[in-house]
Amino acid sequence: MTMRHEQVENQSHTGRSFALPGDVYNATPSRVVFGTGTADAIAGEVERLNARHALVVCTPGRRAMAERIAHALGPLCAGVLPEAISQVPIELARRGRAFARDAGADCIISVGGGASIGLGKGISLELALPIIAIPTTYSGSEMTGFCGITIDGVKRMHQSLRMLASTVIYDPALTVGLPVKESMASALNALAHCVDGIYVSSISPIHKLAAAEGAGAIMRSIRHVAATPEDLAARSELLYGAYLAGAVLTGGFALQHGLAHTLGGSFGISHGLSHALVLPHVTAYNAPYAREEIRAIESAMGVRNAAAAIFDLLADLGLPTCLREVGIEANDIERIVSVTVETDNGLNPAPVTNEAVQKIVLSAFHGERPA
Amino acid sequence: MTMRHEQVENQSHTGRSFALPGDVYNATPSRVVFGTGTADAIAGEVERLNARHALVVCTPGRRAMAERIAHALGPLCAGVLPEAISQVPIELARRGRAFARDAGADCIISVGGGASIGLGKGISLELALPIIAIPTTYSGSEMTGFCGITIDGVKRMHQSLRMLASTVIYDPALTVGLPVKESMASALNALAHCVDGIYVSSISPIHKLAAAEGAGAIMRSIRHVAATPEDLAARSELLYGAYLAGAVLTGGFALQHGLAHTLGGSFGISHGLSHALVLPHVTAYNAPYAREEIRAIESAMGVRNAAAAIFDLLADLGLPTCLREVGIEANDIERIVSVTVETDNGLNPAPVTNEAVQKIVLSAFHGERPA
Repeated sequence: MTMRHEQVENQSHTGRSFALPGDVYNATPSRVVFGTGTADAIAGEVERLNARHALVVCTPGRRAMAERIAHALGPLCAGVLPEAISQVPIELARRGRAFARDAGADCIISVGGGASIGLGKGISLELALPIIAIPTTYSGSEMTGFCGITIDGVKRMHQSLRMLASTVIYDPALTVGLPVKESMASALNALAHCVDGIYVSSISPIHKLAAAEGAGAIMRSIRHVAATPEDLAARSELLYGAYLAGAVLTGGFALQHGLAHTLGGSFGISHGLSHALVLPHVTAYNAPYAREEIRAIESAMGVRNAAAAIFDLLADLGLPTCLREVGIEANDIERIVSVTVETDNGLNPAPVTNEAVQKIVLSAFHGERPA
Repeated sequence: MTMRHEQVENQSHTGRSFALPGDVYNATPSRVVFGTGTADAIAGEVERLNARHALVVCTPGRRAMAERIAHALGPLCAGVLPEAISQVPIELARRGRAFARDAGADCIISVGGGASIGLGKGISLELALPIIAIPTTYSGSEMTGFCGITIDGVKRMHQSLRMLASTVIYDPALTVGLPVKESMASALNALAHCVDGIYVSSISPIHKLAAAEGAGAIMRSIRHVAATPEDLAARSELLYGAYLAGAVLTGGFALQHGLAHTLGGSFGISHGLSHALVLPHVTAYNAPYAREEIRAIESAMGVRNAAAAIFDLLADLGLPTCLREVGIEANDIERIVSVTVETDNGLNPAPVTNEAVQKIVLSAFHGERPA
């Protein structure tokens, strides 16, 4: 078949580039509720899913919050399982599934950060129950249908529409109690989704727009949240940025996430912090290979150099600015580099070579401000 | 349950407004392929859906194009049904279903504008076959899971995930042959999706971004397409705008669409043209009620006054600028107004009163340039 016209064969692409190179875009939850006090209306959300027996899952630390949700559910509550831990060990997911079966649950409500959202996904991956996610951090996991489940000590990525939440409730009031340090690390995680998502070939043009807007919202609000963590307007804007970042996360990610996952998976650095520490340096490395996209981020953030601005942000927020500060040693670097290069997913705009990653890791190790 | 902290009760919302007021967002197709020549790879797209017997549907006018698709499909083609007409009469949908059953089709490929896309949806609403949509106009219908089907002479809106395309292929080469007048009216239809979608309460923040970007892309390319309809770069940018507009369409629409549907449904004005004729006047009426959103549209379009700029665009493109030009008479106005007000969906930012709609229709009737 030749469907191209002669003009087509001969034309030169002089317009701006916006090709969608043959991509699959992951779905996002079909219902998103945003606003202070929206978690109070949880019973209505359960009924909307035609469910009658909701199981609430959370971490031990968020038990009180889960109990309040359970109370609001009244007779619609089938139980509370306050056992979530990060990285979703498969044994925990199995225990959760048995608990949900025994309780006759027909719906999962995950309240909390990535650990709680992950446990809800781990249960639903097998039981195919609708999920209502009520995030209390900025990780973005609630927007995606993928999840790392740890099997025999190895974190394996799973992807399924069964793990995609039916409803996400963003209630900024629930984030007010999140400690500042955790808030900042989690917000940097969200910022990393925006930066590392905007330039991958698998992102849709619509989520490119969300990436820039998300980076802008995070930048506008993050210092306010650090200074006055109980300021609900600032918390709302940061959560709005996290929502956009979560949507971007469904579109793909690249070296930033690979490197952060190496630090988190193999060196025990907390998820948000591992993103924060390498984001300035990966951004600096990728910028010349994704000029238009990084400029969109910079424009939305209101800064001239995204890499330097993010580095300064870490310092201003009192977050660590170098890998040495979090216990990484010089002789770890070789392994960080090799694991990262070996597990690279091929979506990074700039080449992921041993040499390039070593340079990035060294900059992060010493905490050098990107020029 | 009271989950709000004391600070929350007392805080004043001083930040920018971005509340998502308890909304449901409609899904969009999970796979979007964009690029010149991508329709050539149709067989691969069918196989990706695990289908082996694809039925190609189109209008009689696009038969040759459908035959080329059929040829490219080779043994994967189960037949061509070149019988689509606009507004999808239920009898046609039934005939299409019978044809698909007899042909053993396990996949529908819709090639063309709203009529072809609509017939594919009408077939799949009952048979639940995966749909590949290959749009050749700018209507945006390929991005949505809803469709008007005409039953006993009345167009009734249907909505179902069964009608949501699995895959959309945007191949700008297939739009090059669309006549200029049709291209312009269809592009104005897309622009109307962007303008009338950005301010409805049911749109997601992400699709708000798409609405502004879509309006900008349409404005940047539409005069180029009018001047040099075979310029593939301009066609590509216009199709990109149409893709964004289609995504916006899934988020909801308001008075603009209501009024255009009145003109199309009860007065026989073609779909694109009915949008073009009223868009400047509805935009002018709504602008004071949706200042931030209309400013985002204006900023993306690079104009100071969206309503006036769209009016001037109609004139520049040689489209009709007043309802009188297309056969509407003064004594039609009362009925246009009453049908529009009675069928209003309640999503318009400004009040939809008889008085307001009459003023809008009179401005459109006389072709007055918005101030």
